[in-house]
Amino acid sequence: MFPFKKPRKKNGASPLAPDILAELPVISGVRIGVGCTGTKYKNRHDVMIALCDGETSVAGVFTNSKTASAPVEWCRKQLPRGRARAVIVNAGNANAFTGTKGMAGVKSVVQEVANVLHCPQGEVFAASTGVIGEPLDAASIVRLIKNTVDKAAGDNWLEAARAIMTTDTFPKLATHSAIIDDQPVLINGIAKGSGMIAPDMSTMLSFIFTDAPIPTGVLQKLLRESIENSFNSISVDSDTSTSDTVLMFATGRAHSVKMKAIRSAKDPRLDHFKEKLNSITLNLAHQIVRDGEGAQKFITVRVEGAENGRAAKVIAKSIANSPLVKTAIAGEDANWGRIVMAVGKAGEAADRDKLKIWIGGHQVTEEGYVHPGYNEEVTSAHMKGEEIEIVVDVGIAGGSATVWTCDLTHEYIDINADYRS
Amino acid sequence: MFPFKKPRKKNGASPLAPDILAELPVISGVRIGVGCTGTKYKNRHDVMIALCDGETSVAGVFTNSKTASAPVEWCRKQLPRGRARAVIVNAGNANAFTGTKGMAGVKSVVQEVANVLHCPQGEVFAASTGVIGEPLDAASIVRLIKNTVDKAAGDNWLEAARAIMTTDTFPKLATHSAIIDDQPVLINGIAKGSGMIAPDMSTMLSFIFTDAPIPTGVLQKLLRESIENSFNSISVDSDTSTSDTVLMFATGRAHSVKMKAIRSAKDPRLDHFKEKLNSITLNLAHQIVRDGEGAQKFITVRVEGAENGRAAKVIAKSIANSPLVKTAIAGEDANWGRIVMAVGKAGEAADRDKLKIWIGGHQVTEEGYVHPGYNEEVTSAHMKGEEIEIVVDVGIAGGSATVWTCDLTHEYIDINADYRS
Repeated sequence: MFPFKKPRKKNGASPLAPDILAELPVISGVRIGVGCTGTKYKNRHDVMIALCDGETSVAGVFTNSKTASAPVEWCRKQLPRGRARAVIVNAGNANAFTGTKGMAGVKSVVQEVANVLHCPQGEVFAASTGVIGEPLDAASIVRLIKNTVDKAAGDNWLEAARAIMTTDTFPKLATHSAIIDDQPVLINGIAKGSGMIAPDMSTMLSFIFTDAPIPTGVLQKLLRESIENSFNSISVDSDTSTSDTVLMFATGRAHSVKMKAIRSAKDPRLDHFKEKLNSITLNLAHQIVRDGEGAQKFITVRVEGAENGRAAKVIAKSIANSPLVKTAIAGEDANWGRIVMAVGKAGEAADRDKLKIWIGGHQVTEEGYVHPGYNEEVTSAHMKGEEIEIVVDVGIAGGSATVWTCDLTHEYIDINADYRS
Repeated sequence: MFPFKKPRKKNGASPLAPDILAELPVISGVRIGVGCTGTKYKNRHDVMIALCDGETSVAGVFTNSKTASAPVEWCRKQLPRGRARAVIVNAGNANAFTGTKGMAGVKSVVQEVANVLHCPQGEVFAASTGVIGEPLDAASIVRLIKNTVDKAAGDNWLEAARAIMTTDTFPKLATHSAIIDDQPVLINGIAKGSGMIAPDMSTMLSFIFTDAPIPTGVLQKLLRESIENSFNSISVDSDTSTSDTVLMFATGRAHSVKMKAIRSAKDPRLDHFKEKLNSITLNLAHQIVRDGEGAQKFITVRVEGAENGRAAKVIAKSIANSPLVKTAIAGEDANWGRIVMAVGKAGEAADRDKLKIWIGGHQVTEEGYVHPGYNEEVTSAHMKGEEIEIVVDVGIAGGSATVWTCDLTHEYIDINADYRS
């Protein structure tokens, strides 16, 4: 079994990790500091503070979990203010399911940041990632805030991406420039996550920064739209975290020349920006899948011909989350019968007798049966690759969706069956 | 890792298999024959025909898959007639996703059974289990029907349970007597399945027989109610088969003394019968979990305090299907944080701060945090056992539900990543 297991890259990163990390430019109005509490991780930074200009707009999207973490609750409550001066993130403890002490911990951290920056507490955002159900040692964070803020600089992006890692095997960064109203702006994003959920729910987190002058309401719309086809379209193991958080900050510092204010997410001047923002969220989402626990294959599942886009996504996720599909891919087996099964169990309309499946571009089924030209050697060769592509047409209407996932391997079991300590 | 892996029993059965197989009595009006097509399995029976008395009522419950198999379609179509003379089952080929040839295969098999029995085709039911997407060799079945019917006998229950096995490691049987209107009746059930889904969707099948005089409409109600808390409350891997089928037959031959006809499922004379029927479906459902692919632990998940029974079941299944919960249990880790996560992602109402969790009867959480009396040594000792019990009170209202599942182990990956051939 599994003679084909790919080794990790020589720096210990997932075999699917990108060969080159993105180099992120300075974003006007953003400075980053990192610190080390010395609690869970001894020899690395585990706290990141991003400082924003006082006029910075903020948008956020959070986990739908009914057992959301204390920092998620804090961010949700502050978001309507629409202004951010800072976000502080710690790795190693999720501060989730920590009762009333959990919120007290968030407040003491936020208060110290607000004191140091002389800003309202409601303009300080927070996120935590790591083990849940353990009390947060807030004092260990509070005591390093002043020093971390003092050392903050504009070119600390790689340090920031590293400081928020837990079981991640590589830091996740992406950047783009975009044009708004003939003027250049920058977008930087960092993320962490070894799947939608990592061991002990270490969480998927992402922080995106731009110097574009985009007001809060518009920023929130752009972010929510961008999430839907990126972070909300990936899955490692179908388990949703208590702490998933995506925050986006717009400092508005890009423009020395005054441009006419942006008031609507539909403003055509935003088209190029949206395209680049979507590219960044998708890039980061793919990096999370590539760092999925035990991942050996990067899998794209495209569903077409569904009743509508929502139905297509439900079917695509049913395929991407199926343990039988994922183990078959781990075994490099083009077991398309399991794809048929996963379409069937999704509960959305599908016409069995019009169902078409392609694996690696090779048509497998037609008219509810094996395609006459199907050649298992062709699909088997595709399955040996690192990038697996599954396309399904369910034969009902024009709805389509794409989701990304990884295979289910022995290493996933090893990582997750291992004792917490 | 996994120093604690339990070996299979010496007959090759799952470590969770029952030590003693139930011995099923003759049911008046039912005879069973078994045969061997020599196609996929060479040295064992792979066809089972159960013959029923001409007055036999029939009830059925089938997969909700949108890509249901040809025999499931056939049974659905015949069920409204309400009469059964026979059910024929083959193992090794699911006759699912086999296009128009699939239904032609079912019809040729059914027609031969009807010819031999001189009955309408609509009184012959069929089920298939095994690989999907491969053409059914119907002729290999047709040619042994006459001989198999001729050899049919009332005491072939063990042979029947064995003939329908695919990757099952032990045959699944259960029996009870019950009292209706002061008169004894018998109920026999057999099942196959190594999870709700086995490799290549080999399917969960169950066939239940009674000599009680229960008319079709009533039988259908009793069966549907009984399924809900048994077969519909188990999961091995959350993947739903194309072919799941439960059929129940009532010959009415138990009573020499005429009893007043049963006309309603609410007839109080059925109370004892229902209790025993439910016990049989639950027993068979548990046997399927105990034969779950790679299973080392039998897990009971009880949810209380939910908005209603439906919500409780959604939450219980969210816990039972979570790969992180199942791998933690495989690792004998009382990782209750993952139970909190699974409650949160279920999408049903839950009060995080009233959430209570017990593992093996030991209270773990209270008021959104670790219970003051929690002792990890106690839960760790429980996790080392073969039977794991998780109880969760979500603190909303009075809805409750129980589901059963098994752990997610390396053997599951090995079984399912292995190539089909």
